[in-house]
Amino acid sequence: MNLLLLTAVEAADPLIRLRDDRAKHIREVLRATPGDQVRVGILDGAFGRGIIRNVSSSAVTLECKFEEIIPARSEDTLLLAVPRPPVLARCLTQAATLGFGQIILIRSWRVDKSHLASKVLAVPTMRQLLIEGLAQGRRTHIPALHRFDLFKPFVEDHLESIIPGGHRFVGHPSAETQTSKLHIPKTAAVSLAIGPEGGFIPFEVRALQDRGFQAVQAGPHPLRVETAIAYLAGQLHLLRNQSTD
Amino acid sequence: MNLLLLTAVEAADPLIRLRDDRAKHIREVLRATPGDQVRVGILDGAFGRGIIRNVSSSAVTLECKFEEIIPARSEDTLLLAVPRPPVLARCLTQAATLGFGQIILIRSWRVDKSHLASKVLAVPTMRQLLIEGLAQGRRTHIPALHRFDLFKPFVEDHLESIIPGGHRFVGHPSAETQTSKLHIPKTAAVSLAIGPEGGFIPFEVRALQDRGFQAVQAGPHPLRVETAIAYLAGQLHLLRNQSTD
Repeated sequence: MNLLLLTAVEAADPLIRLRDDRAKHIREVLRATPGDQVRVGILDGAFGRGIIRNVSSSAVTLECKFEEIIPARSEDTLLLAVPRPPVLARCLTQAATLGFGQIILIRSWRVDKSHLASKVLAVPTMRQLLIEGLAQGRRTHIPALHRFDLFKPFVEDHLESIIPGGHRFVGHPSAETQTSKLHIPKTAAVSLAIGPEGGFIPFEVRALQDRGFQAVQAGPHPLRVETAIAYLAGQLHLLRNQSTD
Repeated sequence: MNLLLLTAVEAADPLIRLRDDRAKHIREVLRATPGDQVRVGILDGAFGRGIIRNVSSSAVTLECKFEEIIPARSEDTLLLAVPRPPVLARCLTQAATLGFGQIILIRSWRVDKSHLASKVLAVPTMRQLLIEGLAQGRRTHIPALHRFDLFKPFVEDHLESIIPGGHRFVGHPSAETQTSKLHIPKTAAVSLAIGPEGGFIPFEVRALQDRGFQAVQAGPHPLRVETAIAYLAGQLHLLRNQSTD
């Protein structure tokens, strides 16, 4: 945990008393004592500094000061075919760490139907996983979550209203364009579509291409879903940083 | 499994009979029937094609033809501070998928001593994890594995003989050089050092810098170990692909 995240309600108190895993982390991992400072953030809000005022076996009390400027929300989108539950859990946490502003979970042809019944897909569970990822990556904005269990209606009726323009890519092992040939303006919003194990089927790739998703390949070696997300996110981040536009 | 990996001994048989998880995979995931073809590879050897000759509940029999050219072994090195066991398992598999030619596990200051007693560190276990990663990434060369439980003797006495020249980087969140500023020749061997949670301590970073490791930061957001490996591997791959040297 690199950032202690608080809800807006918690942060409104002049003295914040924590009794949950966050208190445990401060006590047992950070081993903080009164007077120590910790980085804090308000969910969907500002960063700040917390000063530990009291540590007991049942609670930790902090006094926090927050910055006045709220960081901008990322406009990047991860479009992800629902993987099997343990992978989904890691992908959600990782996507929040990597700074995607929204995550769209879709059922594509090769998604196993059983994955859709997973407990990981319960909204409170996903929210908790996203918050873990934010705390890891020192970010405050929880990614917006969308879920579509039918591919075609999603692409035809919802995609354009959810994804705000920007540069769009779909990772595809047999695509002709290598990521190293791309140029992406520094301030562009980026959408990244990642298929299930075995990939999107040709119909799905074409449907995404028709909506402006460029098929790109990161290399000839198939990557697991969670590896592909980090690998391509790293490349897209680097390409934007290289840009002089 | 995107590649069926065989040992050299197995591959020497004109008819190869499998009874383990590979047979199960062919039967239950690929649902192959006699006459079907599968991609095969010899560990540390050539790729080939296997034709399924027989499928029963207890065994699968294949006839394989291998290419004459053995792919080159990667000269890339991953230098990894031993993470906690489940993360280590995923890191090993991922590193094999990503094509590191060798993996050096080291104990740095912030590595929890208990991690070194993990069963994951048993050589047969690590080998199995690496083979899973190769099968995912369609690669045949098993990364060489080294392990050093003392940082200073490793850096002073062993590093130079194990890592063959090349470009060397250590991921460090507060480094001044961003990866987007790097230029890496297309054919350069690359070494990537990734610290434990909390990072390498300043002494360790300096020791690595003294051996030519350039400290680079991928961005201001701390990444989990496994995310950092994929994120930076993606960037280093892209930088080499962009090079005209």
